[in-house]
Amino acid sequence: MKLTHDASGTFAIAPTPFHDDGRIDGRSIDRLVDFYTEVGCNGVTVLGILGEAPKMDAAEAETVAVRFIKRAGSLQTVVGVSAPGFAAMRSLARASMDAGAAAVMIAPTPNLRTDDQIVTYFKQAVEAIGDDIPWVLQDYPLTLGVVMTPAVIRRIVMDSPSCVMLKHEDWPGLEKITALRAFQKDGSLRPLSILTGNGATFLDFEMERGADGAMTGYAFPELLIDVVRLSKEGKRDAAHDLFDAHLPLIRYEQQPGVGLAVRKYVLNKRGMIASAAQRKPGSSLSAKAREEVDYLLSRVARVDKRALTAPQASAAG
Amino acid sequence: MKLTHDASGTFAIAPTPFHDDGRIDGRSIDRLVDFYTEVGCNGVTVLGILGEAPKMDAAEAETVAVRFIKRAGSLQTVVGVSAPGFAAMRSLARASMDAGAAAVMIAPTPNLRTDDQIVTYFKQAVEAIGDDIPWVLQDYPLTLGVVMTPAVIRRIVMDSPSCVMLKHEDWPGLEKITALRAFQKDGSLRPLSILTGNGATFLDFEMERGADGAMTGYAFPELLIDVVRLSKEGKRDAAHDLFDAHLPLIRYEQQPGVGLAVRKYVLNKRGMIASAAQRKPGSSLSAKAREEVDYLLSRVARVDKRALTAPQASAAG
Amino acid sequence: MKLTHDASGTFAIAPTPFHDDGRIDGRSIDRLVDFYTEVGCNGVTVLGILGEAPKMDAAEAETVAVRFIKRAGSLQTVVGVSAPGFAAMRSLARASMDAGAAAVMIAPTPNLRTDDQIVTYFKQAVEAIGDDIPWVLQDYPLTLGVVMTPAVIRRIVMDSPSCVMLKHEDWPGLEKITALRAFQKDGSLRPLSILTGNGATFLDFEMERGADGAMTGYAFPELLIDVVRLSKEGKRDAAHDLFDAHLPLIRYEQQPGVGLAVRKYVLNKRGMIASAAQRKPGSSLSAKAREEVDYLLSRVARVDKRALTAPQASAAG
Amino acid sequence: MKLTHDASGTFAIAPTPFHDDGRIDGRSIDRLVDFYTEVGCNGVTVLGILGEAPKMDAAEAETVAVRFIKRAGSLQTVVGVSAPGFAAMRSLARASMDAGAAAVMIAPTPNLRTDDQIVTYFKQAVEAIGDDIPWVLQDYPLTLGVVMTPAVIRRIVMDSPSCVMLKHEDWPGLEKITALRAFQKDGSLRPLSILTGNGATFLDFEMERGADGAMTGYAFPELLIDVVRLSKEGKRDAAHDLFDAHLPLIRYEQQPGVGLAVRKYVLNKRGMIASAAQRKPGSSLSAKAREEVDYLLSRVARVDKRALTAPQASAAG
Repeated sequence: MKLTHDASGTFAIAPTPFHDDGRIDGRSIDRLVDFYTEVGCNGVTVLGILGEAPKMDAAEAETVAVRFIKRAGSLQTVVGVSAPGFAAMRSLARASMDAGAAAVMIAPTPNLRTDDQIVTYFKQAVEAIGDDIPWVLQDYPLTLGVVMTPAVIRRIVMDSPSCVMLKHEDWPGLEKITALRAFQKDGSLRPLSILTGNGATFLDFEMERGADGAMTGYAFPELLIDVVRLSKEGKRDAAHDLFDAHLPLIRYEQQPGVGLAVRKYVLNKRGMIASAAQRKPGSSLSAKAREEVDYLLSRVARVDKRALTAPQASAAG
Repeated sequence: MKLTHDASGTFAIAPTPFHDDGRIDGRSIDRLVDFYTEVGCNGVTVLGILGEAPKMDAAEAETVAVRFIKRAGSLQTVVGVSAPGFAAMRSLARASMDAGAAAVMIAPTPNLRTDDQIVTYFKQAVEAIGDDIPWVLQDYPLTLGVVMTPAVIRRIVMDSPSCVMLKHEDWPGLEKITALRAFQKDGSLRPLSILTGNGATFLDFEMERGADGAMTGYAFPELLIDVVRLSKEGKRDAAHDLFDAHLPLIRYEQQPGVGLAVRKYVLNKRGMIASAAQRKPGSSLSAKAREEVDYLLSRVARVDKRALTAPQASAAG
Repeated sequence: MKLTHDASGTFAIAPTPFHDDGRIDGRSIDRLVDFYTEVGCNGVTVLGILGEAPKMDAAEAETVAVRFIKRAGSLQTVVGVSAPGFAAMRSLARASMDAGAAAVMIAPTPNLRTDDQIVTYFKQAVEAIGDDIPWVLQDYPLTLGVVMTPAVIRRIVMDSPSCVMLKHEDWPGLEKITALRAFQKDGSLRPLSILTGNGATFLDFEMERGADGAMTGYAFPELLIDVVRLSKEGKRDAAHDLFDAHLPLIRYEQQPGVGLAVRKYVLNKRGMIASAAQRKPGSSLSAKAREEVDYLLSRVARVDKRALTAPQASAAG
Repeated sequence: MKLTHDASGTFAIAPTPFHDDGRIDGRSIDRLVDFYTEVGCNGVTVLGILGEAPKMDAAEAETVAVRFIKRAGSLQTVVGVSAPGFAAMRSLARASMDAGAAAVMIAPTPNLRTDDQIVTYFKQAVEAIGDDIPWVLQDYPLTLGVVMTPAVIRRIVMDSPSCVMLKHEDWPGLEKITALRAFQKDGSLRPLSILTGNGATFLDFEMERGADGAMTGYAFPELLIDVVRLSKEGKRDAAHDLFDAHLPLIRYEQQPGVGLAVRKYVLNKRGMIASAAQRKPGSSLSAKAREEVDYLLSRVARVDKRALTAPQASAAG
């Protein structure tokens, strides 16, 4: 049940569904989880940056995490526990694991600058949550402003046996995957799962560089699953053909801030969540933007029929 | 009981006392509050940046706030409720006011950039906590990275009738006080209390520029009280003479990061808190630094006998 | 000859060609300009961020600008004059205009925070270079860290009659174009050319939002020209079909830091510049990355035969 | 003539004197240098951050540097050569050394984040200017945003035999001096001069921690000289007594942005420079601020008669 360094495949980053008035929508959580399970995801990651985690208070965060975990069943659940302090991080981590989570995910706090500060931060974080909890290291400089070299990631991983996975979303990041895999070849880094984020914008090449799969929130996890699978089968052209058909939408979803509005809009159209609402401070889509997304969906659908369901779900949504 | 725009004098920013093992030390909270009351503070501010607020989980933060409030009695208590999201901000704000707090304090979230983003943030914050709660606007660019012009502060204050005070700690900041007071003279800004922070480094001139008092954590609140009083009495030279005697220590305390360790060390020497411990990630003082602080205390004591108690308390500490 | 607010079409952002040893390669400048002219660019922008401008000393920068301008003939040349101070900005601006440049381009200096600081900066910049020089306002928050709202851009433009163009590269940025065009409709903003950057990642929709064209450094300016033209002709599907064929490469080129290495590699393969060398501190491509770019070129070539020339040029390169 | 790791004492950071209309004031340069010589400075540092270096174009910067150097005679001159790129850095460094400078000073470029990025930057900088030029490493995180650990400073120094001095202005920074001196004791760091900046705010304790002297721009370099001397003679109380008398003014001068206006105002009052003008974008003093500085000067003069000259010079200024 617990996450190990053998983890691979596709972990969907789940948004947190809210009702229009901002209350948490538990039934949409269930529907989302069922959807991720049906399409074949290997796991689901909740309370990430995409999941509007900081907008919930401590009790709400735990409620959301537990509902996802309980519904997930055999699907592995990773819970984002990044917090301004270690006490809050520990509370959520322990509660999540007690409820059956597979692992927690920790991002660096934004004020870290030097290599030593970064390494020390994760040492203290692991000390706080306990070294019996498998954890995912999130490397996301664009949003967090903390830059970790491959050597620093190696120090963190070698310091903490309970670190089992890297959520890789540096930008640019392809050479980073290559560097980490080279560390493993030369024996200086132990086995580590690498799943990639950044909205899948580079998933095609990340797989070729040695990633084990995807952990991101693109509204068509089926595409992630297919690209990961085709890449592992060595079907390069097929993987790129499918990926390229989705790239215009992937790019549109990966816009900072407004990206979440796009994702919730598409997931709502697909019938997975009852409302695209975000808590404040949130982003929203103009009528023009919604039309652009609809147009992109119609273009994806020319190659990938699964995008066809979108307009139909929309009618019912 | 509730804070109004007439507030003035000295509000001590209280550190959160911990035991050596990191547990919250409730008895030291009581002692701190009693001390602030005895020396004549007008209020106490808890769970500020200095108060290691982010290191506590939600339940602990509420516990600390309530213990301070209950002990404070007639002393007005301001509770820092800055949080990554509005739900957590609201929870702590409502609980604090229910327990008898005089007001809450809100700092801008670090990612704000444009004037409109800043104004909107506070509009949403007030909407979240409720417009029945008096609140203090914290302006602290050095630490938070958010720069508010006097005109932006005016927009925030004029938007929100429940904003009663500015905690001023821009650096440089003297002209900002002058600009805000000029807005009031020309009728474009309503009455607003201005208390100053920054460890009191500029308290001497801030009072002359029109501040109503001090809200900061210098380990000798007696000095703040005296300087505020002498300034209000128009005794310029006397105010500066006393202030200058403390400035070498004030400066030493105002060092980023390590400053809290200095304060807790001095408060511990003075017998106000049982331990100088901080929660991780924390700062600490080397033996050399402790010697430097002791030397500074002995020099202050040549002018201000109250600093004499320090070495004695230390022997007992 | 001088740039006006009627400017439209495609302005190629030119890299600065260096020899392998770091000397400026004048002959490659000529070849680049000739190439931009032949394919039908409307202008060329030199000494931009992409152009490694800060890596040249003052004399070199002027030499490069003048060589581009002289060769450009009827092609309008825009010279990036952003500098840490106004004296250096003025020197390069005056020298460039004297040599026949069409306009200069100015980005905000990175330390600006408040709306007023930004507006004042451009007021002083225009005062420094002289209000007889047409100039392009560069809005690039991702790299520069300065966030300008549409209202701030309006203030800058309305303050300075010599501002004729916005180089738009906010991210996300589509709504910003819409907002600026709406200002013009309501009469609060005067006519202004808007060309878009960001490596063309959103050119398809930017044109639909009201952009006048592209000003960016994608190594196939032919694609920019075609998409701009098709968009203006209202051929939406055709514009997107062509754009989408290039998007996988556009995305690969738009990686921070390493993107310039990709561009110089492709331009070198296409025979436009003799060396892909950058001055230090620079980026370079691993063998694996070069293979990835070659693969992307081969895929683009399935739809756009112009990409075919790349591998051939490579053999000769 | 060239700077070595034995350098010690006081190096005044010189402002660049301008006429009211912004032209460089060569005669005030001469007067400043003569003043620094007369009071007993060991060196003068020009074109630093305080010296408004970025506001001059390349030719002006060289003119200023050469005028200072030529006038300085036996006084060692350090020239700040920090620049956005290595070509400009090299040009100014070579011209300065040819004119007789003792060394150049280099600060990290603001975008550096990881330890390796910082180390590589200085390696490339030294490669650019040539390893025959003695240089001073400037460590100023508050303004530059680049954080260098003691271990990173050691790597830089051990990498570059031509690095002879650290200009120390981290904040807090006392433990950093102690750490570097400990490295020397354990043999891992070679001899290195450490002069301290930060407007002298911590000079009293910096000397006790092992600094070799001061390199900063406080408008009374005589005070720096005295404190450095008294500290070296082991006269702790005397050093602090004198230092403390100046601290209220030191603190006032050390305000970001406006500090330079204070310094130029005082130097103008003292008759060293003909005008307190700054080039744009600059800061200025309100009437109220000037009165505050005058008041501080009168208070310093109660202990240090040299401050008495100020009001008199003012009358003539």
